[in-house]
Amino acid sequence: MADFKFIENGSTTSVPGFRAAGVTAGFKRSGAPDFALLVSDTPANFAGVFTSCTFAAAPVRLCRERVKNGGKLRAVAVNSGNANACTGKPGLDNARLTCCMAAERLGIQPDEVAVGSTGRIGVQMPMDTIEKGLDLAVAALSCDGGNDAARAIMTTDTVPKAVALELELDGKTVTIGAMTKGAGMIDPKLVGLHATMLCFITTDADVENATLQAMLENNAENSFNRITVDGDMSTNDTVIIMANGKSQVKIAPGSDNEKIFKAALLEVMQNLARKMVTDGEGTTKVVTVEVVNAKSEKDARIAAEAVANSLLCKTAWFGNDPNWGRVVAALGYSGASFDPDKCNIYYDGIPVVLDGGDAGTPEEELAALVKKDFTIRCDFREGSSDYWVWSSDISYEYVKINADYHT
Amino acid sequence: MADFKFIENGSTTSVPGFRAAGVTAGFKRSGAPDFALLVSDTPANFAGVFTSCTFAAAPVRLCRERVKNGGKLRAVAVNSGNANACTGKPGLDNARLTCCMAAERLGIQPDEVAVGSTGRIGVQMPMDTIEKGLDLAVAALSCDGGNDAARAIMTTDTVPKAVALELELDGKTVTIGAMTKGAGMIDPKLVGLHATMLCFITTDADVENATLQAMLENNAENSFNRITVDGDMSTNDTVIIMANGKSQVKIAPGSDNEKIFKAALLEVMQNLARKMVTDGEGTTKVVTVEVVNAKSEKDARIAAEAVANSLLCKTAWFGNDPNWGRVVAALGYSGASFDPDKCNIYYDGIPVVLDGGDAGTPEEELAALVKKDFTIRCDFREGSSDYWVWSSDISYEYVKINADYHT
Repeated sequence: MADFKFIENGSTTSVPGFRAAGVTAGFKRSGAPDFALLVSDTPANFAGVFTSCTFAAAPVRLCRERVKNGGKLRAVAVNSGNANACTGKPGLDNARLTCCMAAERLGIQPDEVAVGSTGRIGVQMPMDTIEKGLDLAVAALSCDGGNDAARAIMTTDTVPKAVALELELDGKTVTIGAMTKGAGMIDPKLVGLHATMLCFITTDADVENATLQAMLENNAENSFNRITVDGDMSTNDTVIIMANGKSQVKIAPGSDNEKIFKAALLEVMQNLARKMVTDGEGTTKVVTVEVVNAKSEKDARIAAEAVANSLLCKTAWFGNDPNWGRVVAALGYSGASFDPDKCNIYYDGIPVVLDGGDAGTPEEELAALVKKDFTIRCDFREGSSDYWVWSSDISYEYVKINADYHT
Repeated sequence: MADFKFIENGSTTSVPGFRAAGVTAGFKRSGAPDFALLVSDTPANFAGVFTSCTFAAAPVRLCRERVKNGGKLRAVAVNSGNANACTGKPGLDNARLTCCMAAERLGIQPDEVAVGSTGRIGVQMPMDTIEKGLDLAVAALSCDGGNDAARAIMTTDTVPKAVALELELDGKTVTIGAMTKGAGMIDPKLVGLHATMLCFITTDADVENATLQAMLENNAENSFNRITVDGDMSTNDTVIIMANGKSQVKIAPGSDNEKIFKAALLEVMQNLARKMVTDGEGTTKVVTVEVVNAKSEKDARIAAEAVANSLLCKTAWFGNDPNWGRVVAALGYSGASFDPDKCNIYYDGIPVVLDGGDAGTPEEELAALVKKDFTIRCDFREGSSDYWVWSSDISYEYVKINADYHT
């Protein structure tokens, strides 16, 4: 496998041929940046995955249509502060109008524009604010604007999340850049994609839409779908990748290049997924929950997700309490098939449960097991299927943020 | 239907022929009462339903055996402070030994004794403390000890939960009494019974075991299985009913008496279920979530449970924010089949969502919708199946209790 080199302060605009901007249009009362524009100088191939929520927001419905119709993409316009969800036909019309207004200003076609929204549900989009955002963003577009754009899509995030890496293929350099937002409504439970998350990825590799789509779906299962903050899924989740082909490195289906590029893309997506958990609302701990040697991947998955989403486990981690009793209870009610009397549980390699009972680890050792970043490994000793999830704790701060945040 | 009359300060010992006691044995460091004994003066018919957690605690395993073997029950010994869960063979031996020690002191057979435990997981039962509890409790047994017993089974509960009612059947008075505990690890998600809850019910009706069992299972689906505090299920959930027949009122299968008695029993079980939610850990709101006119009961149930368990909804309720956007998001990711554009949502009858979009209810009206006790009704307008769940909010206090409570 090729080595990946992360780029310092990398972002979507670390990739040649992409420009971006992040501006204050006025969606947020705070005056913080709330509108981002990401533009490819040439028509780019693209792919997307979206929320599986029945109440999909207008921008999601529109983007699904874009992906279905295929073709090329040139720009993505993103606002934070208004989700354009549960807004019916006028909401969808507003999403389309946003594309038209962006296309007009950029000299491209409306169907070459995608939109993303995050924020308050059930309020019609203030189109004059969109217009203002577009005017400001088009004027501010720059080949180092990726980090400004990453800041403009934040809601309760405390830090912008962007990343970029380079890899060598066919003796040439290929770059992948990305930005994401997401601090609450984060849950990996269902097939598809789920989290209040927006993620936009750029690359200069030369990849067909279908190949991009397959890689994106498969990698989402091993990155964004593996994280949980609060077990809630959003109406607006969107991941879009654009590939402008500027590196002239062809990523053909079934080729070695595809394997390597897909691995590099996964690296980017996992890097951002991890950042989302670390910056989860009120998060003080990042916990990797592994279930190994289960009878089936489904057993491993539902068991790992039960622990990762258990409110009792999450509050215990916040309280620095390893509390394996709550882990055991969550495994037990998960619905996974396993023999409780064979189950072993380890915290960073230290056994706390052996053969379904207390491993006898001394109290003083137990007290040190919950760290800022640690792994709970549950070994069912039944088969050979594994699954893992990245979770976080639930703190006073989480409750405060979500009791105070009126969407 | 007959009228039910609630008895003031009613409890398990409001039923003729039952005695109870609650004492301090020493399981809890606080010195609060932590051991209860409930005794039927004559052999009683009985039935039980238990946790569906794979890691069932030793007392649950033993009680399941009792129910399977049938026969009669004379006593239930309950401790709080130690769950006797994940304690392997020694744990099961200790549960059996508890029955033997109780039987010896009461002059009955060991298999006429059931046990219940709640508290810390993974610690072997201190049998000298059990012995001390039994000695004190046998000495304290009294025909008005039901409320003391209810107090002794509490863990994070803030108030003891007991109830009794009378009904007239065949010109005679039949009494049903009950006590329960449960403030955390409360979740209705699975078939069977689930919550850190213990509930013991007494009656002087004359009912066969099989009839009792069928009524208990069916009523549990419409009471304890309808409540959620935190979405976690316990290793120790236990509901046992004893019927000593002393009223000489026969409750024959298929009779009118059965219908009336079952309704009265449901009244008792719903009363306690409601008390459990009201006294849920850190609860400040009780929310009835109804989904009506769904295509199937399953669609109604998974949709109602998704809202009832949504951490974002629960924190919003704590913050007095109706936030119907989060309700919509939870309905959408629940997996229920419905048309989002037909969905109406009402808070205590006031529409907040009509045809899947904002109902236009003025802000000042919205602000008053979250009350100490209110109902969210989601009308799918698809079919004729309904489901409801009683839920609570999640407060700072919930996080504090569970970050500090080291089980």
